[in-house]
Amino acid sequence: MQYCKTMPEELNPPVFVLRLGHRPKRDKRITTHVALVARAFGARGVFIANVVDENLSRTVRKVIESWGGNYFKLVMGVNPLKLVNEWKREGGCVVHLTMYGIPVNEVLDRVRRCSKILVVVGAEKVPRIYYEIADYNVSIGLQPHSEVAALAVFLDKLWNGRELSLCFSDAKIYIVPSERGKCVVRRDEWKGEDTEAC
Amino acid sequence: MQYCKTMPEELNPPVFVLRLGHRPKRDKRITTHVALVARAFGARGVFIANVVDENLSRTVRKVIESWGGNYFKLVMGVNPLKLVNEWKREGGCVVHLTMYGIPVNEVLDRVRRCSKILVVVGAEKVPRIYYEIADYNVSIGLQPHSEVAALAVFLDKLWNGRELSLCFSDAKIYIVPSERGKCVVRRDEWKGEDTEAC
Repeated sequence: MQYCKTMPEELNPPVFVLRLGHRPKRDKRITTHVALVARAFGARGVFIANVVDENLSRTVRKVIESWGGNYFKLVMGVNPLKLVNEWKREGGCVVHLTMYGIPVNEVLDRVRRCSKILVVVGAEKVPRIYYEIADYNVSIGLQPHSEVAALAVFLDKLWNGRELSLCFSDAKIYIVPSERGKCVVRRDEWKGEDTEAC
Repeated sequence: MQYCKTMPEELNPPVFVLRLGHRPKRDKRITTHVALVARAFGARGVFIANVVDENLSRTVRKVIESWGGNYFKLVMGVNPLKLVNEWKREGGCVVHLTMYGIPVNEVLDRVRRCSKILVVVGAEKVPRIYYEIADYNVSIGLQPHSEVAALAVFLDKLWNGRELSLCFSDAKIYIVPSERGKCVVRRDEWKGEDTEAC
């Protein structure tokens, strides 16, 4: 069995995430989860609309330092409509995740043909313009739930689960899957899935 | 196309979620997302370990009032180890979601044979005893990310995506998927996926 068999650059088309409506106090942990899911599920970076949040950037940097993914971009204080318009001008697709959209399975084939994908996830209320400007409004189920969950399930389906064996070559530490307890090995001890460190 | 074709009772074995380590201030929104994902992805209820949080229960009740799922149980102030032990005594399986565990695809077949499943999700640090007492320690990827994402992806895989067309017969309002904008119909106007309300 191989656990560590997908490299980030193999997950194509490249995906970036645009997080709308982040309020540093209220959404602190949700936006952190959005960013960590983006990284762990193979997106190349996250844009945070309008605000700059040093706590968020510190958390993401700390995860990258240990677990790798230095290429992962966190760009804050972005003008979101300008970004979306530029993205489309460059030929990229914009996928807005919303419970009101088209079921994900109906758009996957089309979305996989994009040259690059910007996934837009909102907080409470997303302005109407994003429904209009998006190439695809996509739902993960017909129920209210969570932008963290929606992003994860969307990326998992986009890549047919290949992101679950994602590894980062610049990681300092790796996990060796274990039935009980925690097995973490340092990079220089890592000899692939057969490492007998724990 | 049919959007609304899965009823909650068709999703078996029944799943409940145990949320550990909820701190009402810090985890307010994350635990809300855990509960909403549990409901939307077809779990039958959520147990909150140790604490009672009226805000959480208000939010979940409000979602259920509009979108249905009155059978969905939110039980707070639960003694988590007692619950886990009772669950096992009754023949149920305990699945602890952790990035240190066995890759989800390797346990799905076994987990599907359980009579009922208790999915344990923690906040920051999960006490060692849960790694020992769980029937399965299961990872959703080998990276740190989010218990909200882990729960959603686990349930999506358990049910092969069938939960994405979940509907609740006691909903007051339904979504009709739409390419742009929001189409929500009241229950008495709902005639299935062909409803031309918007």
